[in-house]
Amino acid sequence: MNIMEGGVTSAQGFKAAGICVGIKKERKDMAMLYSEVPCTLAGTFTSNLVKASPVLWDRDIVRQYGTAQACVMNSGVANACTGTQGDEYCRQSAEAAAEALGVSSNMVLLASTGVIGMQIPIDKICAGIRTLSGMLSDSPQAGCDAAEAIMTTDTVRKEAAVTFELGGKKVTLGGMTKGAGMIHPQMGTMLCFLTTDAAISHEMAQKALLSCVQDSFNMISVDGDQSTNDTCLLLANGLAGNEMITEEGKDYETFCEALALITKNLARRMAADGEGAHALFEVTVEGASSREQAVRLAKSVIESSLVKTAIAGHDANWGRIICAMGYSGAEFDQQKVDLTFRSRAGEVLIARNGVSTGYSEELATKILSEDEITAVIDIKEGSDSATAWGCDLTHEYITINADYRS
Amino acid sequence: MNIMEGGVTSAQGFKAAGICVGIKKERKDMAMLYSEVPCTLAGTFTSNLVKASPVLWDRDIVRQYGTAQACVMNSGVANACTGTQGDEYCRQSAEAAAEALGVSSNMVLLASTGVIGMQIPIDKICAGIRTLSGMLSDSPQAGCDAAEAIMTTDTVRKEAAVTFELGGKKVTLGGMTKGAGMIHPQMGTMLCFLTTDAAISHEMAQKALLSCVQDSFNMISVDGDQSTNDTCLLLANGLAGNEMITEEGKDYETFCEALALITKNLARRMAADGEGAHALFEVTVEGASSREQAVRLAKSVIESSLVKTAIAGHDANWGRIICAMGYSGAEFDQQKVDLTFRSRAGEVLIARNGVSTGYSEELATKILSEDEITAVIDIKEGSDSATAWGCDLTHEYITINADYRS
Repeated sequence: MNIMEGGVTSAQGFKAAGICVGIKKERKDMAMLYSEVPCTLAGTFTSNLVKASPVLWDRDIVRQYGTAQACVMNSGVANACTGTQGDEYCRQSAEAAAEALGVSSNMVLLASTGVIGMQIPIDKICAGIRTLSGMLSDSPQAGCDAAEAIMTTDTVRKEAAVTFELGGKKVTLGGMTKGAGMIHPQMGTMLCFLTTDAAISHEMAQKALLSCVQDSFNMISVDGDQSTNDTCLLLANGLAGNEMITEEGKDYETFCEALALITKNLARRMAADGEGAHALFEVTVEGASSREQAVRLAKSVIESSLVKTAIAGHDANWGRIICAMGYSGAEFDQQKVDLTFRSRAGEVLIARNGVSTGYSEELATKILSEDEITAVIDIKEGSDSATAWGCDLTHEYITINADYRS
Repeated sequence: MNIMEGGVTSAQGFKAAGICVGIKKERKDMAMLYSEVPCTLAGTFTSNLVKASPVLWDRDIVRQYGTAQACVMNSGVANACTGTQGDEYCRQSAEAAAEALGVSSNMVLLASTGVIGMQIPIDKICAGIRTLSGMLSDSPQAGCDAAEAIMTTDTVRKEAAVTFELGGKKVTLGGMTKGAGMIHPQMGTMLCFLTTDAAISHEMAQKALLSCVQDSFNMISVDGDQSTNDTCLLLANGLAGNEMITEEGKDYETFCEALALITKNLARRMAADGEGAHALFEVTVEGASSREQAVRLAKSVIESSLVKTAIAGHDANWGRIICAMGYSGAEFDQQKVDLTFRSRAGEVLIARNGVSTGYSEELATKILSEDEITAVIDIKEGSDSATAWGCDLTHEYITINADYRS
């Protein structure tokens, strides 16, 4: 199973479109996703106590119905902290889309990302919905347009697809995402839309999504700020004709394998495109006595501002990594820790049993000057491991966020 | 009771000195603090699992003896992640100081701050100890020299003193500090040294220190990274001649009042001098139903990278504040939240009951352009409150930390 070019329009029966309606200046800011037939729906959302209106709207649909057929997205304004007016605008948006597409409004999902505390321009949104519904296409370009329209400070579109077989039927799973992070660690909103022509029940789709999100989007961090709008949706329309997955077994495992492949791929790319990032920073903790311990240590390292700035400076300031492990809340023996830096430029053992190996600073700097860097931390306690993805913290992060609304 | 000029040499019987021994280039990097008579000792230390060798050394003295007479400090190298060699260098440093000062080595405290993972240059340290012991002075300048010698990326010395009466006797409490943060939120090491001529038992001094640290150093954050070396020490030599404080009561309360005044003053100044900071950012959460809830909300706001960059940009991007409250882990009703920004330039109510008031962006930007900014958040649930102090996140933070070792 391999990642290929593609996105939300790769699976059979899915159409999309993306346009500029003037929420942002001269950049695409609205998208629509549509399935020719009703889909099984799975979704996970931000655990922030403060949830945007579209998050509450979608969560209700996932919980009450578990099916959907369309999704309307906008960037530029988050529709968060907008009170009852924000909720009302969700209802109006869904109704406008329902009318334009000839479906019920409880089959229409909504997603917004952008500035918190501002109302969405409902007239532009409703006009955009009418335009988008007339433009829907199953072409790869339509998927690209949608992926572009949900970008905020992202510098690249993030799409991926994979094909696999379920009971002899060819199945496709595609997705697009923006931003970085979910559930705990993240920046100004992650949105992820996954589409597949697999036939799978709501319960099994939800189970697969929750499990894959744990090892992908929940393992990335850009700045530790958890958005009010984080949303990850999986739409499965069954057009591949496979036997419906309704329980665990070989088909479910194959589907999960494909979903894990796509979500990890998209998660890595979100971390690499973190605001202002010059480098993807991957941290693997090995030799842990539990998965939980490994996760806690790996996340603490990628979230540390001091580690992130050291990576930005190509500086093997490894004490900051041990320090971040120390305040993670996980127990470990510092006198057992081995730390290795690795990249395309080579590999260097920096610390053995918690103290410096007297490594070459020159080699370390060379390794840390690449745009994909891995730190492997062996704590020599057991056989569990975890990988987390983050990025360096650079001047551009400050520039982007100090001036975001201007 | 008012803060006045002064520092660790303000109280009777305390002497200090600070010099450059060549750990850093052409900047003071070693200091010594000495009391003419043995002192009652209280101390609190980093809760990071990874503790520097001098932290372990001091913690043993606090726990086993509760008394001390001298302290040797260095900046430039942290003596953390240095293995048994680091512990051995602590023993050698304390013995060198003990010999030079004619005290027992278990009366000598140690503190280091700087790069993690490097060994301290023990020969320079021992030579420095001999020099410093011959230079000790109770002059204000000697206190300044010591305060300067413990600075790393600090841009200003941080000293303060206060005088008060205990049972008719004039008592002085002075202190110096460097860095920012403790226990949870902090940057590359906070060190704080408090000296007083008050007579107070080890138990009551420890109790007073722990309580005051909660409301001061534990309420500041520069970058959320908790150091391996954070140390806060209180030395009380009893030379004021007051009746020894051995229990709660009026004298203990007066002493705590003075200690709170000094520790809050120093904490605020550490936050204001956070790495790269242009502005002190104070956040007060009012109307909370518990102190714990107020603390959690206030800290989450000052620790948010997105809030900190918004402050750097003088941008009233208030949604980021509500968002940071939302992921704090504390419950509250977003529809009750009032948010006010305040500074020398004025005051503006930004949000009422969780939604924008339609405030003037121009006025908000003017208020946020000052170098001391306060956000008052009323959650209208009860009568508890908490104040936390942080700073903006600027380009200089990146510059300082990406190049720290160079």
